[in-house]
Amino acid sequence: TIDPDRLLARLKQLGEIGRDGEGRLIRLAASDADRLGRDRFVAWAKASGLAVKVDRIGNIFALWSEPENAQEAPLMLGSHIDTVIDAGIYDGCYGVLAGLEVVATLKEAGLTPKRPVVVAAFTNEEGVRFSPDMLGSLCFAGGITPEEALAARGTDGKILGEELARIGYAGSDEVARPAAYIELHIEQGPVLEREGVAIGAVENLQGISWQRIILDGVANHAGTTPMTMRHDAGAAAASVITFLQARARASKTGTVATVGTIAFEPNAINVIPARAVFTVDLRDPDEASLKAHEKALADHLAKLEGITVTVERLARFEPVVFDQDLVAEIEMAAKARGHSVRRMTSGAGHDAQMISRITPAAMIFVPSIGGISHNPKELTPDADLVAGANVLLDVVRTLAFR
Amino acid sequence: TIDPDRLLARLKQLGEIGRDGEGRLIRLAASDADRLGRDRFVAWAKASGLAVKVDRIGNIFALWSEPENAQEAPLMLGSHIDTVIDAGIYDGCYGVLAGLEVVATLKEAGLTPKRPVVVAAFTNEEGVRFSPDMLGSLCFAGGITPEEALAARGTDGKILGEELARIGYAGSDEVARPAAYIELHIEQGPVLEREGVAIGAVENLQGISWQRIILDGVANHAGTTPMTMRHDAGAAAASVITFLQARARASKTGTVATVGTIAFEPNAINVIPARAVFTVDLRDPDEASLKAHEKALADHLAKLEGITVTVERLARFEPVVFDQDLVAEIEMAAKARGHSVRRMTSGAGHDAQMISRITPAAMIFVPSIGGISHNPKELTPDADLVAGANVLLDVVRTLAFR
Ligand SMILES: NC(=O)NCCC(=O)O
Ligand SMILES: NC(=O)NCCC(=O)O
Repeated sequence: TIDPDRLLARLKQLGEIGRDGEGRLIRLAASDADRLGRDRFVAWAKASGLAVKVDRIGNIFALWSEPENAQEAPLMLGSHIDTVIDAGIYDGCYGVLAGLEVVATLKEAGLTPKRPVVVAAFTNEEGVRFSPDMLGSLCFAGGITPEEALAARGTDGKILGEELARIGYAGSDEVARPAAYIELHIEQGPVLEREGVAIGAVENLQGISWQRIILDGVANHAGTTPMTMRHDAGAAAASVITFLQARARASKTGTVATVGTIAFEPNAINVIPARAVFTVDLRDPDEASLKAHEKALADHLAKLEGITVTVERLARFEPVVFDQDLVAEIEMAAKARGHSVRRMTSGAGHDAQMISRITPAAMIFVPSIGGISHNPKELTPDADLVAGANVLLDVVRTLAFR
Repeated sequence: TIDPDRLLARLKQLGEIGRDGEGRLIRLAASDADRLGRDRFVAWAKASGLAVKVDRIGNIFALWSEPENAQEAPLMLGSHIDTVIDAGIYDGCYGVLAGLEVVATLKEAGLTPKRPVVVAAFTNEEGVRFSPDMLGSLCFAGGITPEEALAARGTDGKILGEELARIGYAGSDEVARPAAYIELHIEQGPVLEREGVAIGAVENLQGISWQRIILDGVANHAGTTPMTMRHDAGAAAASVITFLQARARASKTGTVATVGTIAFEPNAINVIPARAVFTVDLRDPDEASLKAHEKALADHLAKLEGITVTVERLARFEPVVFDQDLVAEIEMAAKARGHSVRRMTSGAGHDAQMISRITPAAMIFVPSIGGISHNPKELTPDADLVAGANVLLDVVRTLAFR
């Protein structure tokens, strides 16, 4: 059994790193705040006697290997420690710190696994600063070259490679392809809490489509320009948002649609917007349905009169089905601990989605109160956090010791 | 007849003051760029031997008075030299510089009017940085106290009074209430050009309603939050924009509706917006119709489910009817010069609208190519600019010399 106090204290400590003047947690990938968070993770890993490796895209790996197992493919645990803007403290950090806790527990018990166990903290999982999301794990899985990934430009115009070098996390280490990958994470959605279930065994993950859309119209005077003579980029953007809302609400596959960012130019009260720039986040567990929504969006954009449309694809990941044996393993471990468990879909994207390209992967979820995430009110009760970590411990005991 | 070359050259010169790195003209009220523009106007006024006065709200008055007429109520001409973001060079500046040109022409001809003639450059007409628009002329007309006006907070958080002091235009002069006010301006709309008419005699001006609307919802994860469980402030804002668009398009009174500014918080691609802040610019020549639109907007806002609504009134001006004798004077002067002329409504707000509260006022319009304004493509042909200035000259000869 893991040490609950150590895990919970570390979660809180890490959650204090990257607070702004208003107390908001903002630890965007490869920022100064991220550097401080990374340094803390590295210090904890070293305190447990783990070797720390950093690869080219800045993924950090805390490696527990012994002379007798060093040649085996490692079991990988992990998640990410970058955050969104005004974030909660659990998203990602829970999986990383629980991974560390599991390794420390096993190590302190004097056990030696049959294979190395490595805890990963992947770079830029959130995708708030750099696109696509899950960039570090995508790169580790070979889905994008390090050169391409390092060239990603942030919302602030900075280049990821330069930022990683600046914060001291542009590494050159290589880590062997893992034998399996298990990611423990808060659900970030309402299902487990609503059903009173303690543990989710995640068997699949919905597809994600991210686009940046730029609409160009014509700036003109808000008072003198008749409605029929306008090319209002802002009104066109609003029509796209309401269109997507209506489609997602009518969906039978559980589509979700979000426009999270927007900007108008020149952004003056009495000037018709010449330009509107916004992002679209479309998700669907069903690839055909996701494609249909993308097509409908493109058709809607093509019909905007007097507006020039530019579309940039920021991320596109198909739905993923996790390894059924690992999902069953998680279910068994949860039941053996006396927890209620259900199989479920992940609404969020996760590093496991990328790593599943190269090795069997699965995820363990714990409940999120009110289904709230990407919000400072994000909360999972301590007992659930401890339960999840112990299920992870048991899964690792099975996978790394056989 | 005025000196066309001097007028056109000065318009171009003033239009170069306040260009940013990308060549965009941005001379927001009480900014450093505005100071440079004001200094230039003052220098030109002094070069013509005019006395320069600055009142508490920073309005500049270039005064032509002679010992024999100094006791009479002055005739006032003028407009403003502040601009929007990425502006054209004619809006406001044309009226101010043509006023100066008319005075210089009459003075150089050795004439002495029966009353002083004063050319005003009013502070913050555009309302882009500080609300309400026409703030300087509203204050001059007694519609707002200097204390209130000086306390206005800009979009950048700065206080108008402090900014005026900083740029050296916090004055203490007083100028007598004028006997009449005439404002020459580009139409900024499409009517004159479409009808091939050279001069507009503006007989009324539509009502203006400006509001800032703040919608508060709940930030949550874009992937995990079902559509039915969202409190998406951004989607709510989009619904307001499409609602206003539809109403304005269906209007029989010529209503125009514009959302020119918007911001989401936290403004991250995969976070449901917790907050949307945007401005609404509603205008109508018919006060009852304007009121009905404001009411419909309030009703729509009240119906937004799960969203907290905060509304700030930024400006509210009823439609204004100008002085019929002055309008007739303008018509006659235009015809006497052989120009086609029509009576018309102003779609834009103008300082004349405020000054009409304290003295008979009217406006002269010249065509705007393509009806384009608040846009760097704003253009009035030189011949039309000269024609308008000569009509102003003739109107001044009538009003100031009788
Ligand atoms: N788990 C998580 O919040 N990932 C960020 C990527 C996403 O938006 O799904
Ligand atoms: N003339 C002009 O553009 N005035 C600015 C105020 C308004 O938006 O009408």
